[in-house]
Amino acid sequence: MPEVDRLCIIGVGLIGGSLALALKEAGEVGSVIGVGRSAANLDEALRLGVIDEASHDAASAVEGADVVVLAVPVGTTRQVSEQIRDHIAEDAVLTDVGSVKGDVVAQVEAAFGRVPANFVPGHPIAGTERSGAAAAFATLYDNRRVLLTPLPETNPDALAKVRRLWEIAGAEVEEMAVAHHDAVLAATSHLPHMLAFGLVDCLARLEDSGEIFRYAAGGFRDFTRIASSDPVMWRDICLHNRDALLRVMTRFEAEMAELKKAVEQGDADGLTEIFARAKAARDRFTG
Amino acid sequence: MPEVDRLCIIGVGLIGGSLALALKEAGEVGSVIGVGRSAANLDEALRLGVIDEASHDAASAVEGADVVVLAVPVGTTRQVSEQIRDHIAEDAVLTDVGSVKGDVVAQVEAAFGRVPANFVPGHPIAGTERSGAAAAFATLYDNRRVLLTPLPETNPDALAKVRRLWEIAGAEVEEMAVAHHDAVLAATSHLPHMLAFGLVDCLARLEDSGEIFRYAAGGFRDFTRIASSDPVMWRDICLHNRDALLRVMTRFEAEMAELKKAVEQGDADGLTEIFARAKAARDRFTG
Repeated sequence: MPEVDRLCIIGVGLIGGSLALALKEAGEVGSVIGVGRSAANLDEALRLGVIDEASHDAASAVEGADVVVLAVPVGTTRQVSEQIRDHIAEDAVLTDVGSVKGDVVAQVEAAFGRVPANFVPGHPIAGTERSGAAAAFATLYDNRRVLLTPLPETNPDALAKVRRLWEIAGAEVEEMAVAHHDAVLAATSHLPHMLAFGLVDCLARLEDSGEIFRYAAGGFRDFTRIASSDPVMWRDICLHNRDALLRVMTRFEAEMAELKKAVEQGDADGLTEIFARAKAARDRFTG
Repeated sequence: MPEVDRLCIIGVGLIGGSLALALKEAGEVGSVIGVGRSAANLDEALRLGVIDEASHDAASAVEGADVVVLAVPVGTTRQVSEQIRDHIAEDAVLTDVGSVKGDVVAQVEAAFGRVPANFVPGHPIAGTERSGAAAAFATLYDNRRVLLTPLPETNPDALAKVRRLWEIAGAEVEEMAVAHHDAVLAATSHLPHMLAFGLVDCLARLEDSGEIFRYAAGGFRDFTRIASSDPVMWRDICLHNRDALLRVMTRFEAEMAELKKAVEQGDADGLTEIFARAKAARDRFTG
């Protein structure tokens, strides 16, 4: 018996598609039905064997599924949840892959009238700058972290099931509280994306931007790689993790003010202290 | 006849050492004398064949050299220039590898009482986060850009000679004005380093920083790689390219204020516009 009999992936992109492929490769899923709006993307997913059936209708697609994965932009969580609410089986496990958790839980709660006991909020920390079913690959989650943020009302069996799925996909699963997840991700992912988008946009708006980008070397490419991410997805993440993001943006603002003052005043010791502390912290965490 | 008879490299680190190795490998240098303060680093450079002779004394080392390369931290340019001023041959070519050019030219001018006609300010846009002679390798400059910023008084023969040396090392050489160089590098290199150092330091100062860094994934590692650079070198670059750096820091400050306001106000269109413009610019320049 495979771990999942019938898997329904709502949103067949890099994240949802790669999970489907990983479970298929492990022989741990009977069949996969994929739901999406783009016929071209669903056709590609079928052709590549990411899914076995395709549907534009989430409501009918969840019927008969024992595991349903929401892999849609976080801003559409409530709308999709409302579509499936009256069709998902009572004992089916529902999980998601959103980059923010507090807001996703609130949207699911709003749609269902309560947080379903079988809903397990999750977030795989993996991805590339590519998107769509064609970008999916079975080993995306190998040795990557997946964070699950169960609630007091979460059914332990549902939690255990979702944990097993990610472990089958090769991931290292950890549990943490919703608010803690959102604060940690704001600091390590959402703020860096703001800085990368902000830096590239800032330079693009300079008068001689074409000339400037000509001389952007290796370090700049690495530094700005995340500015090639999907703008709509990141708009959603910002708006749906607003409070935690604003807190770290304010901290960063103060840090840059301190750095600027040190440059203005020619404060060699102050600059060395900041740079050395940063280097030590980075060298420590990259081991 | 090799291009250089006797090459003197003052500062035998990654940058100076790699140039020496590239010229040696091409058979275009008779002998290399390396100057430095650290006996251990010079011993290592001798052992690895980066240099043929070692010296702690720049004054005597430049005697008899037909090409002298200053590969020291930019903050020490004046001091080293004063040491060699009365010992470098009249017809020897002097060049440097500093990441800022206006301030280096001013330091050389202050030491010599004028800008020597045979001085060719230069900047190879290459490097890794490693440093020291042991990090040097002959192919560092393969297909990398080297910017030369000749002055009105620069001897065309000296300029042509320095250009040939870098081309032998595999680099693509371009010429630009001093002030333009400093503005372009402030935008594409110095500001990104400020942001990377600032971000890592900002997170390191949060209460739960250890916990936060645990969840820093691939994008964060790429983004912060340059925060592992040498703090003292970067302190010098900031202080010696202060005006150009402050101008782009101020622009970036305004950009982040705009982004923060958009997040605060839940301005979805404003965020999408900024992110999309940044993505388009980055996708364009990375080709």
